[in-house]
Formats: sequence, C-alpha cells, structure tokens
Amino acid sequence: MLYPNNIKKHKKENINYANRGMDLENLLNEANNYYLLNDIAVIYKKPTPIKINKVKYGNFPKVIDGSFNQKSTLDYVGIYKGKYLDFDAKSTKNKTSFPLSNIHNHQIIHMERIIKHGGITFLIIDINQEIFLVKGEDIIKYYNSSKIKSIPYKLIKEIGYQIRIGYNPIINYIEAINEAYFKGEI
Amino acid sequence: MLYPNNIKKHKKENINYANRGMDLENLLNEANNYYLLNDIAVIYKKPTPIKINKVKYGNFPKVIDGSFNQKSTLDYVGIYKGKYLDFDAKSTKNKTSFPLSNIHNHQIIHMERIIKHGGITFLIIDINQEIFLVKGEDIIKYYNSSKIKSIPYKLIKEIGYQIRIGYNPIINYIEAINEAYFKGEI
Repeated sequence: MLYPNNIKKHKKENINYANRGMDLENLLNEANNYYLLNDIAVIYKKPTPIKINKVKYGNFPKVIDGSFNQKSTLDYVGIYKGKYLDFDAKSTKNKTSFPLSNIHNHQIIHMERIIKHGGITFLIIDINQEIFLVKGEDIIKYYNSSKIKSIPYKLIKEIGYQIRIGYNPIINYIEAINEAYFKGEI
Repeated sequence: MLYPNNIKKHKKENINYANRGMDLENLLNEANNYYLLNDIAVIYKKPTPIKINKVKYGNFPKVIDGSFNQKSTLDYVGIYKGKYLDFDAKSTKNKTSFPLSNIHNHQIIHMERIIKHGGITFLIIDINQEIFLVKGEDIIKYYNSSKIKSIPYKLIKEIGYQIRIGYNPIINYIEAINEAYFKGEI
C-alpha cells in the first residue's frame, strides 16, 4: 500500500511516512501542489538564497560558483483565504521534546514581524512520528523564556494542532491552519 | 547631490536615477530595507530558484553546479497592513509603450491566483524615466486582450499610480500601494 488510510485515529504504523521515503519537505511540497491545482491556496517553498558569483553561459547557463552566505528566514510563504502565511518545517529525532536550538534568533525576529503586520506564522513540527502545527505566538513565548530550552512533547500535544496523515495530500495541513486560525469561519 | 529632492512635480533631471548607478532592483531593495527597519512592512525579493546539482564542501560550502531550470513567478513577496503582496518590477527602454512580451504567461496565471485568493499583485514599470505601479487586474486585462501587444505610455499614466522619486527611500512605492489599494483607509 502506497499511502496510509485516511483515518482519524492514527496507529503508529499508519503515520510512519518516513518508511515510504517521504520527508517532511516532500510532503509539504505535495500538499502545496495539491492546494495550487485545486485552487485552495498558493503556498510555496522559498528558493534557497544563493549568491551567484560566476555563471557559465551557453545553451543552458549554469552557476559554477554560488555561495550560501545569506540568512534565510522561514522556508514557506503563501496566501490562504486572503491571509499571508509564512512558516517553517522542523523535524526532530528527539521523542520527548523539541529543542529550541532548532530555531535561529533571526527566525524568531521574522515571526514577530509577521505577527505584527497581521500575518499568520507557525512551525510544522515533526516529532515522535506525529506532526503538529504550533503557532508562532507560542514558539516566540517559549523561545524568549529563559527557563525553557526545549518544548516537551506533551506540551506540543496540548498547544499544537495535530496534522492528520491521510491520502492526497498525505499531510493536509490546511486543516490544522483552519482549526488554529479560522475556527468558526468555516 | 546624491539624491534628488523629494518634490511632487518631477523634472526629468530629478528622476534620472539611472545616472546614479541605481537600477530598479537596487531601489526596491533599498525601499524594502527601509520598510523593514521602520516596521512599515516586510517585503523581500524572492531568491532566484537554482537547482543545486553539486556542492563543494569545506569551511564555506559552495555551489559548483547549479541550473536555472525552474520557472520563477514574480520577484517580490511580502506583507503590508495584513495583506499579502506579490509583484514584479519591469523596465523597458521603449519610451512610448510597455511591450507585454515582457510578461510570461505563467506570471499572468500566478497573478490571477493571487487575486483570487485575496492578495495584492501588481507590476512596477520603469518607463520613460518614470516609475508606475500598475495593478495586476489591469495587466491581466490587457495581456488577455488579443488586440493589444503593448500598453501605451499614455495609458500607463492614466491607469497607473506614479511612484515619486524622493529621498530615503528613493522610491517610496508604498505611497502608490496606499493610493491604489488602501484609499480612504489612511
């Protein structure tokens, strides 16, 4: 079976998408492609910022010297229901907590700016074979707390919005966005 | 004098920024940096999509084989007053009209999607030493008209919102956004 069943109550074997060779980035790309083709949202991964130092021209020009010296902010950007979305995906192998060292300070500053200007920002966290949307507001709060170095898995289950594993798209994470930000509107 | 005066009625010598070695992209980057630092908006140029084929690792990893084989949509994205912005900058040396061949079909499709989902999309057109914001809705209309191959400069002056050349930022194009999309709100 290529894809797990679209069931609400997950069993571990059904959410172990990693065994099928799909990482979180591929799953998000698949979902974004589905949203685009079905006119649900326009969301895409920002290209990796590469400073182009030297190009070899020809029928197919190519970069032969490019450096990774620019800071990226969050990986995904888009529009959904008229709202600006800006988010990132983070995976941890740690099963009991999400280490905040996974987040860079400039990413927190970016999240603060997005919230200030009325956008939606969050992290998609892949932990313990489950996937959660955690609001930027919560991430910022814990990041700025000097007492917390990681967010316990149990707390993520409490404050986060679990993303169900289904079929086409495998992770239909817009359901979690609806629950987190558009509750009562739909 | 490094910068022209911030005057409403421009004389040609005052808007000839090209002589100062600033192209439209640099001017937009300068403006975006100003908006970021002054908490006005978060707008940035999307990185050029480069497919990374080979990286040379070391203290400073670099791309030694990268190809430009992905379609880009529009160059700039951001958030302003809670709204999603997605736009491009186009320069033409043609003084009497803006050839629609400057726009790719997939860019029109992208603009249509942004409008459909409630975002703001436009082109910033640099023509005849003047700069205008032209709404995506108008661009799409003329692009899809089989009769029109270019938008006359006179029509751009009529349907577009002129961007004044000033000081810090040199092109304060958010004024034109306000006029085009937020009139009466400010």
